[in-house]
Amino acid sequence: MARLIDELRKLPGVGTKSAQRFAFHILRSSDTDANALSAAIQHLKQQLRLCSKCNNITDVDPCSYCTNPTRNAHILCIVEEPTNINAIEKTRIFNGLYHVLHGTLSPVNGIGPEQLRLSNLWPRLDEAEELILATSPTVEGEATARYLADEVHARRSSVRISRIATGVPAGSDIEYADEVTMTRALEGRRDI
Amino acid sequence: MARLIDELRKLPGVGTKSAQRFAFHILRSSDTDANALSAAIQHLKQQLRLCSKCNNITDVDPCSYCTNPTRNAHILCIVEEPTNINAIEKTRIFNGLYHVLHGTLSPVNGIGPEQLRLSNLWPRLDEAEELILATSPTVEGEATARYLADEVHARRSSVRISRIATGVPAGSDIEYADEVTMTRALEGRRDI
Repeated sequence: MARLIDELRKLPGVGTKSAQRFAFHILRSSDTDANALSAAIQHLKQQLRLCSKCNNITDVDPCSYCTNPTRNAHILCIVEEPTNINAIEKTRIFNGLYHVLHGTLSPVNGIGPEQLRLSNLWPRLDEAEELILATSPTVEGEATARYLADEVHARRSSVRISRIATGVPAGSDIEYADEVTMTRALEGRRDI
Repeated sequence: MARLIDELRKLPGVGTKSAQRFAFHILRSSDTDANALSAAIQHLKQQLRLCSKCNNITDVDPCSYCTNPTRNAHILCIVEEPTNINAIEKTRIFNGLYHVLHGTLSPVNGIGPEQLRLSNLWPRLDEAEELILATSPTVEGEATARYLADEVHARRSSVRISRIATGVPAGSDIEYADEVTMTRALEGRRDI
């Protein structure tokens, strides 16, 4: 019991009290439930891996996006983390493929280009017509986008490289936009 | 005393308790302070008016923006409310003039084009090279921008009309962007 509580306490946001509650819940639950939880944890670590093409988390390699014949393999959307794929998919307007960096450039934290999963991006450029840089508009995300734009142009100048728009969020009042966002919204204005 | 408390209670967010506290504070304060407050209120209503050119709130007509010779009179930024001018000024990248609509189209609330301060916008188009539509990316703000774009193009097709960018706010993670904002960020992506 103490061993399980110790292990559960390692989960984020779980202290001794919560860990004890989880442990007692598992103790009281049926063998089936307890085994299912144990097996799910095992399965996760044994079966899930990164897609060799796009670095998305997957249980089959290549992942379901990379092998989906209805998706446009000529447009790649570059994201920081696997969860970002959901944010893009929810818009239902992107039908290309993804490439997950698993991080952003952050010299302060010692994260340089060699820590990002880029080696399998370069071969994908041959097929690409457009690369959408969908890293976040944070300092690190912008630096990563800038670095990628330079690297990609150097390797294949004919590919179109685009950056997602920074601006006032939909539905919000410009009164609540901070100065940097308002500046970017003005600079990024589009003819209509 | 009761008369003052009644008047103070009409201020937004001020109840009887606060109004009493204000009234006693004024009672205890010097004649100079009390007179200054009274005079400032009088002055506000007597002196402040709308600029006849841009509808900004001003004590001299035309306002200090409209008469500033260092500003570019060929670019007009259209905003909903006078306070929005501050949001744009804080960016320090806009040096044109303004036009304040004092509202947005909202058919549900019975606000049509005739309720907006547009009559003095049309004569300004002759001098204009670009019109930046800086209404908020809300339903009403977008409808107003669309209406203005159509009206302006019909009156003077040579003027450039632009719309401020909608997208992920600067410094924020794309993970926290709602679907509409993410859609607009993808649609509004720019080549780099």
